[in-house]
Amino acid sequence: MKLELLNQARCFGGEQRYYKHASTALACDMRFSVYLPPQAQKADCPVVWYLSGLTCTEDNATVKAGFQRTAAELGLIIVCPDTSPRGDHVPDDEAYDFGKGAGFYLDATEQPWVKNFQMETYITKELSELIGAELPVDMSKQGITGHSMGGHGALTLALKNPERYKSVSAFSPICSPIECPWGRKALAGYLGQNQAAWRRHDACALLADNGPIDAEILVDQGLADDFLETQLKPELLEAAAETSGQKITVRRQAGYDHSYFFIASFIEDHLRFHGERLKS
Amino acid sequence: MKLELLNQARCFGGEQRYYKHASTALACDMRFSVYLPPQAQKADCPVVWYLSGLTCTEDNATVKAGFQRTAAELGLIIVCPDTSPRGDHVPDDEAYDFGKGAGFYLDATEQPWVKNFQMETYITKELSELIGAELPVDMSKQGITGHSMGGHGALTLALKNPERYKSVSAFSPICSPIECPWGRKALAGYLGQNQAAWRRHDACALLADNGPIDAEILVDQGLADDFLETQLKPELLEAAAETSGQKITVRRQAGYDHSYFFIASFIEDHLRFHGERLKS
Repeated sequence: MKLELLNQARCFGGEQRYYKHASTALACDMRFSVYLPPQAQKADCPVVWYLSGLTCTEDNATVKAGFQRTAAELGLIIVCPDTSPRGDHVPDDEAYDFGKGAGFYLDATEQPWVKNFQMETYITKELSELIGAELPVDMSKQGITGHSMGGHGALTLALKNPERYKSVSAFSPICSPIECPWGRKALAGYLGQNQAAWRRHDACALLADNGPIDAEILVDQGLADDFLETQLKPELLEAAAETSGQKITVRRQAGYDHSYFFIASFIEDHLRFHGERLKS
Repeated sequence: MKLELLNQARCFGGEQRYYKHASTALACDMRFSVYLPPQAQKADCPVVWYLSGLTCTEDNATVKAGFQRTAAELGLIIVCPDTSPRGDHVPDDEAYDFGKGAGFYLDATEQPWVKNFQMETYITKELSELIGAELPVDMSKQGITGHSMGGHGALTLALKNPERYKSVSAFSPICSPIECPWGRKALAGYLGQNQAAWRRHDACALLADNGPIDAEILVDQGLADDFLETQLKPELLEAAAETSGQKITVRRQAGYDHSYFFIASFIEDHLRFHGERLKS
């Protein structure tokens, strides 16, 4: 067992667990949470990855998003990874939007980040293999979602791995990191000025360069979100989807902001969306 | 307007708000949260008070209990007060179970606590009047619930104010402070050695001394709760209810612990219980 169980609590008839493990990809210890629905006691279950936003850890969505109720009903495992490598030896930046808590779900190439900030490899390879080996997950049925920076992560990882993620959705995602301050700072810091590399981590550029994926994309975006116009820009994703022929539904939710109160309000819809696509 | 709005976020079609106000009863500034369901835009709605446990503020249940979904469906306002007076000038204790974060929903008589630790007056008079005056609450339809120390608070305030609280429930309540270490420490510290005063803040003693109330009581208690045998003791409440003729349902939930994952799992049941009794 490479996973150390830190805590578990019964929740909606299933188990909310927190694990710690030594990550090779990130060269540090990492934590993540996993919700096992009641159905996982008897059979392997589909999994939905939930990628969190800036400043978050594995804990925020686990305690605030309220996903356990619907996951228990639908028999979905929910995995919440942390958002960056962690530890005193891991380089950091004073800003909230770069360094720890801001891994952007990509593999850095620049110093001093390259040694630890390999979040794409961590999520899609190392943590996937660990979970597949040690938890009752049906790895042929994976979906992915996330919020803000984690919405960017869900979209880009799904667009790059269409054979792996059968369903994809996002809450208020950063739709085009190339076209917003959060994204440009992260891409320049982690990847340098290699614009071809930037395009591999931008949902709009991936659609333009690689074309559509089979999976339909669901996005919810609050219209009272302070970051809507400057950072998130769902209109760019809609335009890229239309040009490339990507099926997408972007729902604009009047009055909702960027908080977990927004996510909690619509997580049931997203899990039902994933559940329908992961059943078959 | 005596209430200062600190934050509000749309949630399940309603509004999750945080307020600050100057409390006379507690001689300090206080915060609380209030969830206004969509129905409150058009008419006054019933209110359920949620009293939190040791170490909590108004925020814990608001972000972790997941009450907004069912409250929105049923048209219930949910008020989460803080658990003690706050501020640098308020006396405190190093322990987590006494002083700030541990007001025990009683009015202290001992120094140095007497000036600020008047949580019973704060909840039942000052905050009630404020909310009744400034928010769309139907004050003829009030219910009360809480967790742990807050479960003790819900039970004792309901037993002392049967005309006010038409419905009462609790999650893993401290059932008899007189008979557990948390309770004895708080009662002795805040009230001194006046045993008659202790009995006014003990649900079991109130049932013995005053007899039953009309409202049926609902209690949920996890059987994997680390505090079950030493601090919570639901068997004492059941015995006192039987002796006094109090209607009560105590549900023992296998595998559940003392955390918000437990509360989140059963909050819907509790709100439906309150909603049915507050409708008429």
